[in-house]
Amino acid sequence: MTDENTTQETIDGFHLVIDALKLNGIDTIYGLPGIPITDLTRMAQAEGIRVISFRHEQNAGNAAAIAGFLTQKPGICLTVSAPGFLNGLTALANATTNCFPMILISGSSEREIVDLQQGDYEEMDQLAIAKPLCKAAFRVLHAQDIGVGIARAIRSAVSGRPGGVYLDLPAKLFAQTMDAAAGKRSLIKVVDAAPRQLPAADSVQRALTLLKSAKRPLILLGKGAAYARADEDIRALVEKSGIPYLPMSMAKGLLPDNHAQSASAARSHVLAEADVVMLVGARLNWLLSHGKGKTWGGAKAAERQFIQIDIAPTEMDSNVAIAAPLVGDIGSCVAALLEGMGSNWPKAPGDWTADVYARRDKNIVKMAETLAKNPPIMNFQSALGSIR
Amino acid sequence: MTDENTTQETIDGFHLVIDALKLNGIDTIYGLPGIPITDLTRMAQAEGIRVISFRHEQNAGNAAAIAGFLTQKPGICLTVSAPGFLNGLTALANATTNCFPMILISGSSEREIVDLQQGDYEEMDQLAIAKPLCKAAFRVLHAQDIGVGIARAIRSAVSGRPGGVYLDLPAKLFAQTMDAAAGKRSLIKVVDAAPRQLPAADSVQRALTLLKSAKRPLILLGKGAAYARADEDIRALVEKSGIPYLPMSMAKGLLPDNHAQSASAARSHVLAEADVVMLVGARLNWLLSHGKGKTWGGAKAAERQFIQIDIAPTEMDSNVAIAAPLVGDIGSCVAALLEGMGSNWPKAPGDWTADVYARRDKNIVKMAETLAKNPPIMNFQSALGSIR
Amino acid sequence: MTDENTTQETIDGFHLVIDALKLNGIDTIYGLPGIPITDLTRMAQAEGIRVISFRHEQNAGNAAAIAGFLTQKPGICLTVSAPGFLNGLTALANATTNCFPMILISGSSEREIVDLQQGDYEEMDQLAIAKPLCKAAFRVLHAQDIGVGIARAIRSAVSGRPGGVYLDLPAKLFAQTMDAAAGKRSLIKVVDAAPRQLPAADSVQRALTLLKSAKRPLILLGKGAAYARADEDIRALVEKSGIPYLPMSMAKGLLPDNHAQSASAARSHVLAEADVVMLVGARLNWLLSHGKGKTWGGAKAAERQFIQIDIAPTEMDSNVAIAAPLVGDIGSCVAALLEGMGSNWPKAPGDWTADVYARRDKNIVKMAETLAKNPPIMNFQSALGSIR
Amino acid sequence: MTDENTTQETIDGFHLVIDALKLNGIDTIYGLPGIPITDLTRMAQAEGIRVISFRHEQNAGNAAAIAGFLTQKPGICLTVSAPGFLNGLTALANATTNCFPMILISGSSEREIVDLQQGDYEEMDQLAIAKPLCKAAFRVLHAQDIGVGIARAIRSAVSGRPGGVYLDLPAKLFAQTMDAAAGKRSLIKVVDAAPRQLPAADSVQRALTLLKSAKRPLILLGKGAAYARADEDIRALVEKSGIPYLPMSMAKGLLPDNHAQSASAARSHVLAEADVVMLVGARLNWLLSHGKGKTWGGAKAAERQFIQIDIAPTEMDSNVAIAAPLVGDIGSCVAALLEGMGSNWPKAPGDWTADVYARRDKNIVKMAETLAKNPPIMNFQSALGSIR
Repeated sequence: MTDENTTQETIDGFHLVIDALKLNGIDTIYGLPGIPITDLTRMAQAEGIRVISFRHEQNAGNAAAIAGFLTQKPGICLTVSAPGFLNGLTALANATTNCFPMILISGSSEREIVDLQQGDYEEMDQLAIAKPLCKAAFRVLHAQDIGVGIARAIRSAVSGRPGGVYLDLPAKLFAQTMDAAAGKRSLIKVVDAAPRQLPAADSVQRALTLLKSAKRPLILLGKGAAYARADEDIRALVEKSGIPYLPMSMAKGLLPDNHAQSASAARSHVLAEADVVMLVGARLNWLLSHGKGKTWGGAKAAERQFIQIDIAPTEMDSNVAIAAPLVGDIGSCVAALLEGMGSNWPKAPGDWTADVYARRDKNIVKMAETLAKNPPIMNFQSALGSIR
Repeated sequence: MTDENTTQETIDGFHLVIDALKLNGIDTIYGLPGIPITDLTRMAQAEGIRVISFRHEQNAGNAAAIAGFLTQKPGICLTVSAPGFLNGLTALANATTNCFPMILISGSSEREIVDLQQGDYEEMDQLAIAKPLCKAAFRVLHAQDIGVGIARAIRSAVSGRPGGVYLDLPAKLFAQTMDAAAGKRSLIKVVDAAPRQLPAADSVQRALTLLKSAKRPLILLGKGAAYARADEDIRALVEKSGIPYLPMSMAKGLLPDNHAQSASAARSHVLAEADVVMLVGARLNWLLSHGKGKTWGGAKAAERQFIQIDIAPTEMDSNVAIAAPLVGDIGSCVAALLEGMGSNWPKAPGDWTADVYARRDKNIVKMAETLAKNPPIMNFQSALGSIR
Repeated sequence: MTDENTTQETIDGFHLVIDALKLNGIDTIYGLPGIPITDLTRMAQAEGIRVISFRHEQNAGNAAAIAGFLTQKPGICLTVSAPGFLNGLTALANATTNCFPMILISGSSEREIVDLQQGDYEEMDQLAIAKPLCKAAFRVLHAQDIGVGIARAIRSAVSGRPGGVYLDLPAKLFAQTMDAAAGKRSLIKVVDAAPRQLPAADSVQRALTLLKSAKRPLILLGKGAAYARADEDIRALVEKSGIPYLPMSMAKGLLPDNHAQSASAARSHVLAEADVVMLVGARLNWLLSHGKGKTWGGAKAAERQFIQIDIAPTEMDSNVAIAAPLVGDIGSCVAALLEGMGSNWPKAPGDWTADVYARRDKNIVKMAETLAKNPPIMNFQSALGSIR
Repeated sequence: MTDENTTQETIDGFHLVIDALKLNGIDTIYGLPGIPITDLTRMAQAEGIRVISFRHEQNAGNAAAIAGFLTQKPGICLTVSAPGFLNGLTALANATTNCFPMILISGSSEREIVDLQQGDYEEMDQLAIAKPLCKAAFRVLHAQDIGVGIARAIRSAVSGRPGGVYLDLPAKLFAQTMDAAAGKRSLIKVVDAAPRQLPAADSVQRALTLLKSAKRPLILLGKGAAYARADEDIRALVEKSGIPYLPMSMAKGLLPDNHAQSASAARSHVLAEADVVMLVGARLNWLLSHGKGKTWGGAKAAERQFIQIDIAPTEMDSNVAIAAPLVGDIGSCVAALLEGMGSNWPKAPGDWTADVYARRDKNIVKMAETLAKNPPIMNFQSALGSIR
């Protein structure tokens, strides 16, 4: 496509990677430079990307992951091959477990030597090693596929349940060149990377019917609720329903700690007594005793019913039966619930809420008294007192 | 712990598996009996499940997979351990690639011997082997978890993009017993196993705007469209838009072969010439030349834009850039498009459709003439003639 | 490097594979032709290799594996990609478990599409899938590496403990060409593919000391003894020591069934009573009840001591403690024992051997009587009678 | 089963692990305590094991690995589950690549929750994750199998080519109890953990014949030679043969730097010119340019022949053809060569050795001159000068 009077311009793999990231709004890389990605780091800086270097790849990876959680854009961690990759992999595995959107980009050794196991410098089939520990993993072999590779990595990291993605870039790739115009065309600006996912009307209705029937309802706000940035709708849902709520640790701050409906200081009581629990972006994992056992009232567990809002349909029934699954992104699901509740939704039963808030207030007073005694030896209470 | 007037009834692992399947409407098992699942087969029959036996597990697996595709319920394949498992695994891998909902249930050897690699009968870490070849894989170690295990397998097989799931049931599990009432309570009747997933309004609008701007639009119907059972809405979309369409081989029959808008007999022409292509449950894989190259008009490819309807957000941009992704289940997306098109949607440009249908009709005549000549030697045409 | 009067000759990947196999004495291929190895099959036949085709890759793989066991040369199984590969993989896993030397060669799809998961024809990372199920796995990307790839596969299959090896040959490899002379030089004729491995003198002495101290010694001959082709030395060891022996099923025929020292018809007795057991190429796996429990006399097991001859040091202590490990190839170990025993080795204690042979003879008579009664209904005994 | 006068004593999993380690001479653990191995660390110290704690598991793992290399006993690294395990895994992978004997012992979460993927605390199938990155991996589920598990781990780490082994100990295992006497009997004191492996006479002869025929022979000493602790025999081999030698970096110190036959200062020359190269525990990996290319004299490579001494038969032909493989432990192989050389072995050709030493001496003088000039700016030479 060049006309005859122009010099044919080319672009190399380094710049295709950088341009693909920039095209998709990635402005920061967390990493530790070295062979074969030393030049990539340097050039990325020259092109205006902020490069934050660390002394160990794991720290870089953890920084990238938490940046992803805070910004809803995948945090990028860049490492060298083999040991650098493995260091970053620990952070990647952690990000995937924690649903933080992150992309680990690692340089890698030559395929022909790795695949024959001939003892290359930092020989390792990084793609195969990474797969069980992340949402998706891709390797790019040709410069013209860099655009697709970056686009896939971004989509995989942020769509559906967010998590970690591994992108393998062999050393040889960076030096490959191609026509600059064709290179530019090969890049992809991702459209709607994390598409909203609306719940079906009947599933919304099923959840509302169950919620309305509850005698001792409870709302549990999880990390997913915090990630969703639907704070106002979530607050509206809590307040319109008049249901006591518990925030998981990663959902602290979504509502003020002293909100009138907070049941934080009566946690044991509400988990054991609630008859209908609505999980909003919270998983019934070990932090919630898998929805079973003494924490949940033992024998009473048989009578309890769960409503669960989650973007992953496979989260449903993962620990106990979910009576009313609501599959979609948190924002869309909460909005649909609010709309479905209409204007005259009945508040949660008063005897239950009065009971919960009374216990809560009593616990708060008791805790304050214990802290006030300020015992001379260091224990849990004295430490808390000192902090205050 | 029972009071003296009642008989303590127990239930074993065999019957928990059978009851869990029946509770979820599974009425057929495809398999090949043997250690350690011989009795499971026999008991399942006694409990009214239809057991269809095969002489090789691979055939059983393929039958289960296609049954899954036809019924939208996961097809169940039951095998013995190690070689039986591996035979079924080939079918499972195939089902996953083909998006057929299927569950491979295999008996397995004792964990303690497998994990120490002491040479057990048919020793193999089947769970780890299966994982890279299916959507999800689970192992159940305790009778009280059978209900959760079956529920997770069903959800994983049919929700989102359908596919294969592996469920590992160790030999020891079947003989475990538990209180019958507790056992019954531990089973889960899956609610809304394949939740509908509605697209967001702005993504629908984006797709319609692009479709309306097209000069040479084309609709491609894929296997996903066939699986969706939204035949009427899909037909309405095609006819309301007046756009020529191509069915992939697995979508044949969704619309009649002689539909006025069919471009089947002008396939090469429309793929090379269309400027906007709407993929309905069709993937840009090797069957579509990855959306690139000569098949797609070579240089013209740079000007083409794609609308893609798919339940998996990670399918977008997997081969080429998708200008208007529509992420959701096919039925919900097509319904949303129809609603968004309103009552006075303009038909596809007449010069393009006239051109397409003229070529198609010419090709049909030419093919008929070739067949009529009925050459004495066996070739593609004579074979077709004989079949007619 | 060619002189000017000659035509530059080239060789392609197909012929490098064929020549490399022939150079190493491989004269037979078991397989099922198809894309991308169709031409390889055809050309191999043209070059004088015997190609035996099957209707399912698993049967081809099983044939190759057993040919490997019988000939001590790796049996070659050739398959297409993805499903063909998976079918062959079942046989490969079986061969590895059974210590049969075998090489599964499968064609595979293009790396760039597989690694980006773009939906290639029969897309699968076959190398990664195969690794957990075989001794070694290699992929060859360049024509000049075919020689190394075949050599490594052969060595891996037959050296140490024999087993299955996977060799991945991508479709593109076959069509690559290189200078014919350089190609010929790139091939490797493997020297001493299965090197003998002699035991150290002190480990031989340790074994002999223990054997001499035994009051109720027993020799167990396993599959490894049969594979070793050291029949004469093994017979000499048995006869010189005067110890009763038991053959495992795969070691039948190593010594005649009616050998005076055979304890086959007194199996339960000798396993439960022996105080020192010498395992010759036999593993203490499920076929031998893991060396523990009722089969081995229950409480008496605590007093028993094992001598184990095996080429794999990691087989030692895999199920019970091995008091005298003898690590080396069976032939070398047995020869070293014979030499160490010298010319006046004491026979096994007469009270023990008399007891064993008396029980054996009684059991044989009893079995004969049972068979003689020839009951009219079909059972185990009548079936055996008919066969005689 | 105890008689009435004795107290039934029990032993728990913690102490079985500790006793098994001590029984096998393990006196040091490198690690980082935490759930679920906190108590193990504490109790191990109480039982006299030295516990060296680190602030990151990777450092503990690297320390354990290098301790293994220096002592020929496996270095033990102890970590918590999931992230602690992954941190240790990087060191384990490194140890395996470097042939350092090491055992990574990690606590792990409950199987039933991990296998159903229900979100356990630090849920991860660590056994499956570790396998591709180590020589062997085992998981122990029952207290009575701890002895076998530790024994297998030790054997796997030090026998054949040394390397990393992973041992998975689930949290539940530690609290299991069993009869103390039975527990003691279940422990295994490993006999001959790293059995010597003697080469066959014909392979020794083949190597000597080739060596004798050489015009420009070279000996390359690698890390394996250093690990073997056969310093005297290796020196005797070098001196008896009169062949110039090169030490790899990990073999420095095996012979004094100023040994008369050292070719270190003529490295480029000898690699490019030697016609027969004997590799003693050195691999033809990237550090040796894979035995090919410019480093090795380019076109001359076609005429070169290799003798390779290595304990792993599969190392042979891994990069180039090995004309005379000598498979066995370094000590046994070198001893066999010395014996085979007899008393009147001819020294290496004088023209070759004279040439090598002349070049070496010239290079040393040149280097000394360059250093003497002591340039004011910091460069490679000035740095070296300062160090001196």
